[in-house]
Amino acid sequence: MNIKVDRNEFLKALITVSKATTLRNVGSLEGILLESYDDVLSLYATNKEIQISTIIDAKVIREGKLLINSRILSDIVRSFDNGEVEIDADENNNIKLTCLNSKFNITAMDHRTFPNKEVYNINDFIKMDNHVIRNMIKETSFACATSDSVSPILTGILIENNDEDIKFVAIDGFRMAIRSEQSKERYMNNIKCVVPSSTLNELNKILTNYDDDVFLNINDKKFVANIGRTQLVSSLLQGQFIDYGNLLPKESKTIVKMNKNELLSACERAAIISDEGRAHLITLHFTDNNLLLTSKSAYGNVEENININLSGEDLDISFNSRYVIDALKVIEDEKVILEFNSSNSPCLIKPVSSNKFTYLIMPVRISN
Amino acid sequence: MNIKVDRNEFLKALITVSKATTLRNVGSLEGILLESYDDVLSLYATNKEIQISTIIDAKVIREGKLLINSRILSDIVRSFDNGEVEIDADENNNIKLTCLNSKFNITAMDHRTFPNKEVYNINDFIKMDNHVIRNMIKETSFACATSDSVSPILTGILIENNDEDIKFVAIDGFRMAIRSEQSKERYMNNIKCVVPSSTLNELNKILTNYDDDVFLNINDKKFVANIGRTQLVSSLLQGQFIDYGNLLPKESKTIVKMNKNELLSACERAAIISDEGRAHLITLHFTDNNLLLTSKSAYGNVEENININLSGEDLDISFNSRYVIDALKVIEDEKVILEFNSSNSPCLIKPVSSNKFTYLIMPVRISN
Repeated sequence: MNIKVDRNEFLKALITVSKATTLRNVGSLEGILLESYDDVLSLYATNKEIQISTIIDAKVIREGKLLINSRILSDIVRSFDNGEVEIDADENNNIKLTCLNSKFNITAMDHRTFPNKEVYNINDFIKMDNHVIRNMIKETSFACATSDSVSPILTGILIENNDEDIKFVAIDGFRMAIRSEQSKERYMNNIKCVVPSSTLNELNKILTNYDDDVFLNINDKKFVANIGRTQLVSSLLQGQFIDYGNLLPKESKTIVKMNKNELLSACERAAIISDEGRAHLITLHFTDNNLLLTSKSAYGNVEENININLSGEDLDISFNSRYVIDALKVIEDEKVILEFNSSNSPCLIKPVSSNKFTYLIMPVRISN
Repeated sequence: MNIKVDRNEFLKALITVSKATTLRNVGSLEGILLESYDDVLSLYATNKEIQISTIIDAKVIREGKLLINSRILSDIVRSFDNGEVEIDADENNNIKLTCLNSKFNITAMDHRTFPNKEVYNINDFIKMDNHVIRNMIKETSFACATSDSVSPILTGILIENNDEDIKFVAIDGFRMAIRSEQSKERYMNNIKCVVPSSTLNELNKILTNYDDDVFLNINDKKFVANIGRTQLVSSLLQGQFIDYGNLLPKESKTIVKMNKNELLSACERAAIISDEGRAHLITLHFTDNNLLLTSKSAYGNVEENININLSGEDLDISFNSRYVIDALKVIEDEKVILEFNSSNSPCLIKPVSSNKFTYLIMPVRISN
């Protein structure tokens, strides 16, 4: 291989694909596969769960295939000042990497040891706005179960679509986040799959470096996202996801409207005193047009008063403060609605100005 | 005690003094001592090596003394929106902390268990510009020995002054950084002491939050720094510091002038390949008006070429790349001078435009 590429483009591409090698694999999976043909260089990395590939423009003097350690290659290219990077490799895998007055000689790995590059051509797709899908990931992934969960399926985000919209749903057993959105264009319907939240978080990171829309394609086994000339492919999680529709209460006996930042600040203050041993417990006393928020522990106690707009019955209810804080942090609206039925049944939190985000949280039962 | 203070001023004061509690002490040393009198609140913390105190304005309704856990108090005040914070404590150490609609009830510790507050009144002093002393700390502290050094005295920075200037000197056995500066005003001479670098790094952090000049006072046992109404007192390190004047070469057979950023970038690139097992070794080949910088390891090798201005003899010399990089990072000048005598004797690195900073670095001996 002998090619010339722009340093900045090359580095961006390396950063993108190296996300598929972050799990510290051993041997060939630590590598990035470079392949040059026509006027392009393709880069490809995989850890068998996620694979990421991208293509950049290149002056191709001699075609070829190289497998290079991801960390070494990224560090070298990052260290170059911007200019033209030349990669010149002989048949024995000796590589000269030059840029301006710098010359590196490194050795490639044997590319025949690397898994075959799989490319998915997307015909049917759901087209999403770059910024919108990033928000959907941000507003649901925090509510996924962690990797040591007893239900591995809950470490993923349910993606489903119908004629109306596309939904992301995350549940960890104590709370649920649902985010729905219109797609820009849609040539796939009735999709239902569970994508690892780690995959979507990697997709989110890639998207911050691109402006392009995202083209999603989902089949029985794979989740495929195309962003310009970059493709991310991930395995799906297999298993039965919770039927989340049944969890949503059909009616509400208490409905509260209030300022989001006031509630968030009060929860954060109460959390300082709330005790890890008592599940970061805070108690909310809704009466008339006042919320009294309290918390206590060995350190002392705290009382917060907030003006609210209440309709329905007065109510006392207790939560793990972290679950309330997590949800309020991703809501961008100035005001939120809280809906309750009793001290022992789930609460709904929604932004006032849109019905695209719904958060459900289980209360902590307090014996009097 | 019953007082009212401004939240922002209170928080800044808490952040300042809590630096003396960062070493995770146990019991009363985790606390901050609050004392109100006249129209002020004084705050004081100590870990017995460093003590920090500061004073802010307060409306004092009832004088008193309180010892409160530093983390809890800082977290509470940080969580408040800006406004007036009221501290109201009864004789049983029950404290009400209120701000706007928030009310915390916490318990104070017994302030009688806390070391007596020592206040040093500075009469003789060396007055330094805030920004200048921060630079002096930054440009020397990186060259101190680490806490596991066999020479504990080298974990400190030597401070000495004479009629002409004040000097900070750091030596770790492989390199030395000397920074000298005129003081703004001086009523102390012939000081010579070794201050723990940790103390000076804490002082540096405090100074970033203040604009005031610094008034230094040093006696046999203590280093005292006054910044406005804030005072930091530290123990000194005891022992014999290296006679650094003898380490400086009297003449130079090779003098090289070159661009600092070009040298820094080349060293950073070479360091990617340089091997930890070989002490991050890089080799510099000075000939005519060219520097060829090389490094090799199991990963491969790298060559960098830089234009230089050389007078004297050609020279090959090897260094631990980290020692060169550390020094170049703190030099702000565009150009540097390097002075050598042989491959086995120390090299000097200085900025071209000032004689305030001198860095000495020992080469690594290479057997041919």
